[in-house]
Amino acid sequence: MSSAEHPVAEHPVAESLALVGREVAGVLEQLVQGNQQALDALAALLADAPRVFVLGAGRSGLALSMTAMRLMHLGLTVHVVGEVTAPAIGTGDLLLTASGSGTTHTIVRAAQLATDAGATVAAISTTDSSPLADLAECVVVVAAAGKTDRSREASEQYAGGLFEQAVVLLGDALFHALWMRSGASADDLWPRHANLE
Amino acid sequence: MSSAEHPVAEHPVAESLALVGREVAGVLEQLVQGNQQALDALAALLADAPRVFVLGAGRSGLALSMTAMRLMHLGLTVHVVGEVTAPAIGTGDLLLTASGSGTTHTIVRAAQLATDAGATVAAISTTDSSPLADLAECVVVVAAAGKTDRSREASEQYAGGLFEQAVVLLGDALFHALWMRSGASADDLWPRHANLE
Amino acid sequence: MSSAEHPVAEHPVAESLALVGREVAGVLEQLVQGNQQALDALAALLADAPRVFVLGAGRSGLALSMTAMRLMHLGLTVHVVGEVTAPAIGTGDLLLTASGSGTTHTIVRAAQLATDAGATVAAISTTDSSPLADLAECVVVVAAAGKTDRSREASEQYAGGLFEQAVVLLGDALFHALWMRSGASADDLWPRHANLE
Amino acid sequence: MSSAEHPVAEHPVAESLALVGREVAGVLEQLVQGNQQALDALAALLADAPRVFVLGAGRSGLALSMTAMRLMHLGLTVHVVGEVTAPAIGTGDLLLTASGSGTTHTIVRAAQLATDAGATVAAISTTDSSPLADLAECVVVVAAAGKTDRSREASEQYAGGLFEQAVVLLGDALFHALWMRSGASADDLWPRHANLE
Repeated sequence: MSSAEHPVAEHPVAESLALVGREVAGVLEQLVQGNQQALDALAALLADAPRVFVLGAGRSGLALSMTAMRLMHLGLTVHVVGEVTAPAIGTGDLLLTASGSGTTHTIVRAAQLATDAGATVAAISTTDSSPLADLAECVVVVAAAGKTDRSREASEQYAGGLFEQAVVLLGDALFHALWMRSGASADDLWPRHANLE
Repeated sequence: MSSAEHPVAEHPVAESLALVGREVAGVLEQLVQGNQQALDALAALLADAPRVFVLGAGRSGLALSMTAMRLMHLGLTVHVVGEVTAPAIGTGDLLLTASGSGTTHTIVRAAQLATDAGATVAAISTTDSSPLADLAECVVVVAAAGKTDRSREASEQYAGGLFEQAVVLLGDALFHALWMRSGASADDLWPRHANLE
Repeated sequence: MSSAEHPVAEHPVAESLALVGREVAGVLEQLVQGNQQALDALAALLADAPRVFVLGAGRSGLALSMTAMRLMHLGLTVHVVGEVTAPAIGTGDLLLTASGSGTTHTIVRAAQLATDAGATVAAISTTDSSPLADLAECVVVVAAAGKTDRSREASEQYAGGLFEQAVVLLGDALFHALWMRSGASADDLWPRHANLE
Repeated sequence: MSSAEHPVAEHPVAESLALVGREVAGVLEQLVQGNQQALDALAALLADAPRVFVLGAGRSGLALSMTAMRLMHLGLTVHVVGEVTAPAIGTGDLLLTASGSGTTHTIVRAAQLATDAGATVAAISTTDSSPLADLAECVVVVAAAGKTDRSREASEQYAGGLFEQAVVLLGDALFHALWMRSGASADDLWPRHANLE
């Protein structure tokens, strides 16, 4: 039972955290069981691209920014779209996007522009049937509610919360797999961490 | 067994995701069981502060930015330290920080300045024995490796990855508990979402 | 004569700075002489709006972010579109945009969405005949080259450089006029400056 | 006479803009006449560094971000300190800072860390006698008020406004000189502009 059904929960944050934990476990289980090939395909796209650009709206964008920072630690050339120093995307580059619905205007438009520029698009989404998915070479489908799905059927959490949590964890799993494959040690990566803050 | 012990894993990303899932589940279980009062205390600080400021370095800062956006959706007045429009912190305001080690220079210094300005400091950390914890009225301790702990004893993941994942999920649980308590519906929150992107 | 005509200038940066200074002086002279009423109208819109949102692409966005920070110092409620804590724009709010051409897709689209939401749009541009100008209640026209005008007729500088410089200086003049009108002293504004960095 | 002496100015924004224009012209004249060698030295440091990092607090940081974007357009490898994708600074890299007083804690500390890491520091400041200047190989001195100088002797404008305006214009002059020297056309630079927004 969710804390929503227990408005006078004894420890409401612990109960909410338990809810988050259950929902995250369910989503990860589904990803691990049903998306193995898409996950490996996405890792291969990241590893092979000369440059990786990430783009998401709102919290999805912050989640992908966490991924981007880790990919930088791994030695990849990576940019967050909209950052001051992000250049133009070009032929062969990878645009990694996250959009629950796959219909977010700015994301779909950027995916189209990236495709026009010769780049490859990958998407993390809740559906493989969307304008974004149509533009993507690889779609990882997360069984979570989209941002505008407020039915609370797919998740008790608000809006796209579960989806965004999945993007964070998926990004870190992609990093982990690429790191293991690289053979580099933690000490090899550490010197890349920002050192002026 | 971790994927590190299986360099030729059949589906390396799925295995990495399973690892992430196991580690996250462990950390959440520990939080739910052992930190109920600290979690409730932190929720109360968030709910009662006239203004909430969040601050973390690197990925911890991005994780807290995800929390900040949700608190804005809930109707709280919230600022990310370093954002263009963030004003001065003052008496009664809350500074919510996240630092695995509790020793990050910029975070500890900001916590001291916030305290000097009459604000209250809360911390998410891997320890309650640190310069940051000494300044904090409330510390939520996450049983994850700190950023510079590369022993891989507390986590197979790189650096502070598990800690940063916990900050994301904990922030969303804090939001969920405050949302439930508010009695607001999802439709009540939706009109606050950024609408120009 | 510009440094472009003297590739072997004795002191190339000083010559470039003199060029910038001449071009800026010309643009400001034109603004001061020919736009007095539009400038006052824009100041009135800023002063009267319950909340000010600013939006520009690339360097124009950074220029307006400088303006936004100053308006915060003055005590206005101000948001940079795209910032983590920026909420939805609504009825009566002001969206201040800057676009040399007045055709930048993201800016025009945001201006349309803002108008649909009942907000007022103001624009700093190089033309009052554009999709952006059509949506704006107030347009301040700067006699500088647009970003894609590479004819070097309006300016020897690269792309929209002169326009973006004008946005910075114009934003500071708007602030200065509002500050003078407020009757506040510098010491009154100072306590609003971010104090945790 | 400044608009401060005319609280009932007929066109207060135009008067404020004229004030800004006069103050900017004065500062640029002083830079052009008295800093030719420091300006050329700074251009040489930018041109020769394998990677350029920029850092300033508040509006000075935004001003240097404008410079950073232009240097990216020119083809330099450039990072804004604090950006998600900014890596560690290292031997031979250049840290370009701007601080009116030369005493801003975060800037001085970063300059020290950069020096310790083998990087070179350059500074734009109002003084060559400061902790920041002591760490810098090259200091360009702008005859403007520092942020905390509220005497209004050096400038009628608020706080470090004139200094920050000078940083914007100086950054663009440095770019212009490097661009002229490069022999590249505007059409050569254009393809580097961000193309997904």
